[in-house]
Amino acid sequence: MRTYNFSAGPAMLPTEVMERAKEEFTDYKGTGCGLMELSHRGPEFSEVIASVESDMRELMGIGDDYAVCFVQGGASMQFAMIPMNLMLPGGFAEYADTGSWSAKAAKEAKTFGEVRTIASSKDTNYDRIPVIRHWKPDAAASYLHITSNNTIAGTQYHSFPEVEAPLIADMSSDIMSRKLNVDDFGLIYAGAQKNLGPSGVAVVIIRKDLAERTPDSVPTMLRYATYIEKQSMFNTPPTFAIYILGLVMKWLKNKGGLKAIEEINDAKSEALYEVIDGADFYRSPVDPASRSRMNVVFRLPNEELEAKFVAEAKKEGMSGLKGHRSVGGIRASIYNAMPMKGVETLIDFMNEFQRVNG
Amino acid sequence: MRTYNFSAGPAMLPTEVMERAKEEFTDYKGTGCGLMELSHRGPEFSEVIASVESDMRELMGIGDDYAVCFVQGGASMQFAMIPMNLMLPGGFAEYADTGSWSAKAAKEAKTFGEVRTIASSKDTNYDRIPVIRHWKPDAAASYLHITSNNTIAGTQYHSFPEVEAPLIADMSSDIMSRKLNVDDFGLIYAGAQKNLGPSGVAVVIIRKDLAERTPDSVPTMLRYATYIEKQSMFNTPPTFAIYILGLVMKWLKNKGGLKAIEEINDAKSEALYEVIDGADFYRSPVDPASRSRMNVVFRLPNEELEAKFVAEAKKEGMSGLKGHRSVGGIRASIYNAMPMKGVETLIDFMNEFQRVNG
Repeated sequence: MRTYNFSAGPAMLPTEVMERAKEEFTDYKGTGCGLMELSHRGPEFSEVIASVESDMRELMGIGDDYAVCFVQGGASMQFAMIPMNLMLPGGFAEYADTGSWSAKAAKEAKTFGEVRTIASSKDTNYDRIPVIRHWKPDAAASYLHITSNNTIAGTQYHSFPEVEAPLIADMSSDIMSRKLNVDDFGLIYAGAQKNLGPSGVAVVIIRKDLAERTPDSVPTMLRYATYIEKQSMFNTPPTFAIYILGLVMKWLKNKGGLKAIEEINDAKSEALYEVIDGADFYRSPVDPASRSRMNVVFRLPNEELEAKFVAEAKKEGMSGLKGHRSVGGIRASIYNAMPMKGVETLIDFMNEFQRVNG
Repeated sequence: MRTYNFSAGPAMLPTEVMERAKEEFTDYKGTGCGLMELSHRGPEFSEVIASVESDMRELMGIGDDYAVCFVQGGASMQFAMIPMNLMLPGGFAEYADTGSWSAKAAKEAKTFGEVRTIASSKDTNYDRIPVIRHWKPDAAASYLHITSNNTIAGTQYHSFPEVEAPLIADMSSDIMSRKLNVDDFGLIYAGAQKNLGPSGVAVVIIRKDLAERTPDSVPTMLRYATYIEKQSMFNTPPTFAIYILGLVMKWLKNKGGLKAIEEINDAKSEALYEVIDGADFYRSPVDPASRSRMNVVFRLPNEELEAKFVAEAKKEGMSGLKGHRSVGGIRASIYNAMPMKGVETLIDFMNEFQRVNG
């Protein structure tokens, strides 16, 4: 039986993707080898990486002035690469503080320049995105960094600041879950293991002119220009992870693209929040205007019931529902690959659990 | 039909490993999810990464004063991380120049300190490892860097320099192909995609005290100490690549360990060199004392015949035999996973090709 895995990441992948990858695992397109055994310079992988990029460009509407790069090290490596490459000499960068991931991003920047916190919801336990119209962005900033979705707190930006400095967004947990305008950003990055594919590859979408800022002292593998000039093939890329990412892109296109998946994601999250808000038993700690469509965080009347909820859900084929260890509670991560059927199964379970324990 | 893939990397994996991974691809140990869909903090992957490390320690005889780290970015990222972490303040490092990979490693170090070339075979087209007894290593060097096997030139160290400074070896293309004494090295590193697993993970075996050298300015994801302290789990590691690496370790243990695989590797390469040396038709450009047991490089009487050789071999189910584009010729990469049967098939083909075209 296929488990509904509500883990925050690595997360479940579309069943069709997993089955296709299994089918051709040991014999990719009649080569007699698995894709992971083939040279990255050969015709098979060259076709894979080219089509991942073109599918991603088509799905997200990425223009020619942007490069799409595949980089190892996850979002955490980007926390360092961004200031290494983009902090102007003697400059400063602005960071919005919406949880522990944005704090980690800011921490890495401090070695390379001054970090200014433009807004923070720390005082209210990161229960919201700070109201954007109150921000006072400085046009002289090297860049402004945000975390578009916060997996631990369960918050998400539903609009973005309009700024003169390049806007940089960590979209690890909501990339390609909705339509947005890439031109509003200087750089978008995301570890793949939530909405795009397996762990081991991060996608970086960068406005090409920004890559010219990089100081000479930055090593080859840490320069965005290296990935742009060599189409992410300066050295051997994580071929199998990129291949899976490619299958996910085809799946997204078959689903009807980002507008279609956004509608499904809205329906899934709305159905869950309705159950949470509709009863005294469940409770959302998140400000309604900032609630995430990807990570639905909620509480039960006490921790004993929360533990029981997680354990019984697991028996019913729903795993990964335990909240992040730093905050507790329940977290249902419902990325693109989670089908509506999985959410409905969870809702049925929630109603029954409330009936018995409420 | 299973192809014998002689590609230099990503390279073929043991058939048993590929079949096992396929079998449990969509349902890892009854979880109802593939391993790549499971949280890296869950019990399944925790067990995987712990057993990869302990198997590797057992197979290579790695002592407690060494850490085993799994790092993204391949050997090329190590070219930068090594000097970033280990160059002493105002110091210098020694590099042996045995081909384009060692040259790339040296290039990245220049930003962090002085690079001194301790020996080079550039003048003879990298056809040999410079005679080690002529080297004059300086005990004051931050470290001495070598490339233990050179995939393009087809050369390999068959003994190692004894030096006071930490000896650092890029073993990307011959790690775990033979027994050696880890204690002779300060740091050993290897991209996985030749002898260990798929691309997307590099193994770094480091004497723990060396990690204390790192300057404060080095970002978290580029510090060896981060990987040592967090057991390579500071952020999400490339879980599927590490899992495949684990299957390869089990396969190596079943084969009888490194001594047994070394005997097989010796037999495979000797059989090939015997055919090459036994005829006027084939010719090895490599000094006999420096020949690689992993990448057997050879020439035919002319380039037309070489192209014909590659094309006809492919029709017979042997792929990846074309030499590196920078040197031409033929290259048979025969890493651990290439069975003796594959080498015998190649030898039969070589004899027949010579009979028809010689």
